[in-house]
Amino acid sequence: MNSALILLGHGSGGKLSHQLLDDIIIPALSGIAPEEQNDAAVLPAIDGELAFTTDTYVVDPIFFPGGNIGDLAINGTVNDLAMAGAVPVAISVGLILEEGLPVADLQQVLASMRQAADTAGVRIVTGDTKVVPRGKGDKIFINTAGIGRIPAGRKISGSAARPDDKVLINGPVGDHGMAVMASREGLELTADIRSDSTALNGLVEDLFTACGDKLHVLRDPTRGGVATTLREIAGQSGVDITLEEQAIPLSEGVRGACAILGLDPLFVANEGKLLALVAPEAAEDALAAMRRHPAGRQATIIGEVTAASNGRVLMRTGIGGLRAIEMLSGEQLPRIC
Amino acid sequence: MNSALILLGHGSGGKLSHQLLDDIIIPALSGIAPEEQNDAAVLPAIDGELAFTTDTYVVDPIFFPGGNIGDLAINGTVNDLAMAGAVPVAISVGLILEEGLPVADLQQVLASMRQAADTAGVRIVTGDTKVVPRGKGDKIFINTAGIGRIPAGRKISGSAARPDDKVLINGPVGDHGMAVMASREGLELTADIRSDSTALNGLVEDLFTACGDKLHVLRDPTRGGVATTLREIAGQSGVDITLEEQAIPLSEGVRGACAILGLDPLFVANEGKLLALVAPEAAEDALAAMRRHPAGRQATIIGEVTAASNGRVLMRTGIGGLRAIEMLSGEQLPRIC
Repeated sequence: MNSALILLGHGSGGKLSHQLLDDIIIPALSGIAPEEQNDAAVLPAIDGELAFTTDTYVVDPIFFPGGNIGDLAINGTVNDLAMAGAVPVAISVGLILEEGLPVADLQQVLASMRQAADTAGVRIVTGDTKVVPRGKGDKIFINTAGIGRIPAGRKISGSAARPDDKVLINGPVGDHGMAVMASREGLELTADIRSDSTALNGLVEDLFTACGDKLHVLRDPTRGGVATTLREIAGQSGVDITLEEQAIPLSEGVRGACAILGLDPLFVANEGKLLALVAPEAAEDALAAMRRHPAGRQATIIGEVTAASNGRVLMRTGIGGLRAIEMLSGEQLPRIC
Repeated sequence: MNSALILLGHGSGGKLSHQLLDDIIIPALSGIAPEEQNDAAVLPAIDGELAFTTDTYVVDPIFFPGGNIGDLAINGTVNDLAMAGAVPVAISVGLILEEGLPVADLQQVLASMRQAADTAGVRIVTGDTKVVPRGKGDKIFINTAGIGRIPAGRKISGSAARPDDKVLINGPVGDHGMAVMASREGLELTADIRSDSTALNGLVEDLFTACGDKLHVLRDPTRGGVATTLREIAGQSGVDITLEEQAIPLSEGVRGACAILGLDPLFVANEGKLLALVAPEAAEDALAAMRRHPAGRQATIIGEVTAASNGRVLMRTGIGGLRAIEMLSGEQLPRIC
């Protein structure tokens, strides 16, 4: 079936659908035996509160330096669970395939999904596949929904930022967005920019161990980037957040590509970064914990909560000025995730 | 915003995305307050086993007699949970909007989703919205994932059919598929065929009350129809199922439309039907319980499990013959759900 293409009949629910599921999709994602395949997966009881999230991935192109739509879809939902303080338990996968998609491309994407799930320690337990005619989709769209277990006592929310909290990030910004952009536009950049797509649940557990309830807010700055995400947090918590421009980590490659394209890296999407707002007395412990983790080697403190009202994000520039950061308006980088 | 169209910028994650979410989508679906909007929803603890399912909806056209893609997406996932014996608790919604979609169409779909969720008694708790350029999608695709609570003692599976089990269905077959088909092809049918899209979780609870653990298998015959669904069950349980052709309920409208189009109604999708396999001593109680429920007024027994091996579905015809039913091969009705 390796040289084959996806046909409309693969979405019929009939014989071709069953072949695609039994021969390609289920063995790749879950290995659930045919006699155990029902309309819903049954999960053992989960103790305590649950986190539940969903994300749909329409990234273009589907393969890009550092990853593809498959691992992106797993990591993204794992991270959304982790940002609620949850331990990921189970993931569902909804595929929309465009007629004519090479089955080999599908297999590569599925293999990446399984590998990402194994790395994050989460199981793919249920799924659905649809096929749309040529020109009514674009190769492959993936929805992942996820369930996580929230250990007792964790209260993480965008509305929990407090005055004097420190703002930490686990590494340089903008790599995912610029890798996809460069790949899509065929840009010849001197620097090798790769997506930072990775699962952050392990890093989050280390942060809870280091900070406990002094960890107030977690959020991954995906679409809209660090600027938009911090605006959301400032708005939800009703606080002002002030960033130090000099402190924001940025690779030379991303800095250069953004300069060429006239983009502000603070608005570019990340897929392996988190922003943590931590009580000031726990900030050094949080930073040390991050730096011990492979996904946080370049962690740093980029700002703090400077007022108990207003909902603004302010940037202290290199020459000492202070400017307000707005949310992204319009569409800087379509279909980045 | 009623005369407006969806723009690529509505998928940016920035200001336009927030406007779409805050002004249109969140008020319509959930009413969750902005300060409580996080990357994942937090649900109270659920006692016992969980059911988890996902389905993506790409039906064309998005509006059809008897429903639209919105209520279809809610009812479909509610029903997948109910078919696992679960009480639906929470649903996620992932939207893929095509640039140029009228916002008024989106609003109509969202209103139907909310109404269907309210009717089924389930909450829409989390979501995601992406926008793709014109010609890379088709108006609107919807993924819904769902979580349900499985009350203690319920063991429903496609592998649980037993010899002599009776096969029940809650009403006539083929209405959803033929309604969508007629609507798409602009067929002028004399009969008014409407989709049977409805939530079946209430009917399932009544069946459990009537039958307890004598209820062995539940499955909704969506894509591939009754024939394909029974083939799945026969295969999973390793039994033969024999149907009585004369007993299968069918409206005159669907019968006529299928005859004109050369389709077998047994392979046509349903979205408000369930097949229940029940121990013979409980069959009359199950039938009575179904007929008391609005979604089961025309319930009937259409067959039984006739052998403990083989995995076949057989049809006893009006003149006494017996023929084997295969799964749908190829694509009879694309994009029916």
